Amino acid sequence: MRLAAAGELTLLDQLKRGFREKSRDLVLGIGDDCAVIRPADENMLLTTDMMVEGVHFDLRWTTPYQLGFKLVSVNVSDIYAMGGRPRFMLLDFAADKTFEMKDFKRLFDGVRAGLKKYGVSLVGGDISSAGKLVLSATLVGYASRPVTRSGARPGDLIYVTGSPGDSACGLMLLKKMKKRIEIERRANPDIKPDAGLVATLGWKTVLPLVKRHLMPSAVRPDRYAEAATAMIDISDGLLMDLSRICKASGTGARIYAENIPVSPEMRRAAAYLKTDPLEPALSGGEDYELLFTAPEGKFLGATCIGEITARGMQLVDAAGKRKNIGPRGYQHFSA
Amino acid sequence: MRLAAAGELTLLDQLKRGFREKSRDLVLGIGDDCAVIRPADENMLLTTDMMVEGVHFDLRWTTPYQLGFKLVSVNVSDIYAMGGRPRFMLLDFAADKTFEMKDFKRLFDGVRAGLKKYGVSLVGGDISSAGKLVLSATLVGYASRPVTRSGARPGDLIYVTGSPGDSACGLMLLKKMKKRIEIERRANPDIKPDAGLVATLGWKTVLPLVKRHLMPSAVRPDRYAEAATAMIDISDGLLMDLSRICKASGTGARIYAENIPVSPEMRRAAAYLKTDPLEPALSGGEDYELLFTAPEGKFLGATCIGEITARGMQLVDAAGKRKNIGPRGYQHFSA
Repeated sequence: MRLAAAGELTLLDQLKRGFREKSRDLVLGIGDDCAVIRPADENMLLTTDMMVEGVHFDLRWTTPYQLGFKLVSVNVSDIYAMGGRPRFMLLDFAADKTFEMKDFKRLFDGVRAGLKKYGVSLVGGDISSAGKLVLSATLVGYASRPVTRSGARPGDLIYVTGSPGDSACGLMLLKKMKKRIEIERRANPDIKPDAGLVATLGWKTVLPLVKRHLMPSAVRPDRYAEAATAMIDISDGLLMDLSRICKASGTGARIYAENIPVSPEMRRAAAYLKTDPLEPALSGGEDYELLFTAPEGKFLGATCIGEITARGMQLVDAAGKRKNIGPRGYQHFSA
Repeated sequence: MRLAAAGELTLLDQLKRGFREKSRDLVLGIGDDCAVIRPADENMLLTTDMMVEGVHFDLRWTTPYQLGFKLVSVNVSDIYAMGGRPRFMLLDFAADKTFEMKDFKRLFDGVRAGLKKYGVSLVGGDISSAGKLVLSATLVGYASRPVTRSGARPGDLIYVTGSPGDSACGLMLLKKMKKRIEIERRANPDIKPDAGLVATLGWKTVLPLVKRHLMPSAVRPDRYAEAATAMIDISDGLLMDLSRICKASGTGARIYAENIPVSPEMRRAAAYLKTDPLEPALSGGEDYELLFTAPEGKFLGATCIGEITARGMQLVDAAGKRKNIGPRGYQHFSA
């Protein structure tokens, strides 16, 4: 069945039933003109992110479930990047009338899985027809002490969680495979060997990379927020997002190529793709890892990659040679 | 210049500058991972509404300015419908790369005019490319005692503000004229007489109707919220939205055709369009008037149109004859 046959009110009723919740802080969820939230003691955080078919995702290699899950992660990541705790979400959904009802349901299954993972309640939304699939989510969170981008000071060390570039590398692999990999079906999917790159690289290399792109997990800031002077999540590439911290803080930065954490999977895939692994690690987007600055210290799960300076951005190579660099990353509307 | 030549970051920078604000309750506005809002004592209201080109608006007879203004009004109306006070907005914007920079600016001029009118601050957003123009806004408001849809009780009287149907009738006129009327340029636009329907009806009839459709004002609930047992704004037609109050409250309703307020402009235009004025008044959408129930009383600016009953929905005609009616209104995805 297609959406056209279901009608908007039926879809809304389905959502109302599927996302009904009761909790102490939620007075009224989906179904009235507004959701009603009880007052809280902490500062409130607000963020919104949009995902547009053909721009942010390609349904040839993204399942509706993955898309729904990713939409939640992407928004949660912005709350985490402020050291916050995500709590409520609103979701606008637009799709063509020919969009299949089962895909609609799977997409909201993915949303539900994401909400459960992060402890978020869906409290409102809007549904419309449109030529392309467009998703827009707004997330409400809380933080007693929000960590902004503007608190970095010269001498602070720069840290990154996980291994940046995995997502961009996963996307490169998906663009070559041009097919869906239903990683959401089970923990360790038993997907048949592929004639092409999977036969060469093996699923153990391919899966973590494509998973990072298709179903990224937002990184909890708990271990870092207390000490961090500035924090951001990597959505547009490490350099681009580091330059945002520098711009907001009025500082520069120096990072060391040798210190950039590169996952073994990404190193193997980059060799196969004949790409310098440093390229996706520095400029690849959609990692949703955390990038933060702190005066000093060791942080579990995070790697020190450089330090904040007074001005400019420099990359130091393995031989100790300094190179001035600018932010690089993906921009919508760039010519 | 087109958006493609400007680049996403330039657009974001423009917005950051154009919407910079300081106020006691706003710790951090546009420009970080999240906006930061100081805790409040009242219940918080959350609502979101989307507007999609070709579905919710037609750029042949809607200027970008009008669109931006209407997006704010539509969302504010949902906050007002709960008896609330709108305060913060987030806005997602997607458009084709060929979208003109001057139209982008005019659209945000309209948004700014709407924000100023209602005392709302823009605190976040996202920008993307897309095939069609898609706008999605989330509004945050406050209410000490939110008025829901579910509090109507048999015996309550039903009230509507203003004159419903004006917006739908205005849209019918615009569909015939198929051109833009820049009502935002001045208070009383001096538009040249039109060969067609304007020559017959006159601007004094046409303007209030098309204005109600293109640049609706949300209706402040202050006079009604205290006494109202249930309230909703008319977005999908009086009958449809009344049926929502009835469904949520577990009641029925009886309304009197004679009591439905019909504006003289709408009566004249309906005659010209050979339409029964009761049709747009009962089923026309996008009025953003308030529909509420209250035990009794007189409310300035609102008309009593009937009463809440135990079950069913009935329309009583001028001769006193009762007719059972169902909700009628526009549904997305309806076949």
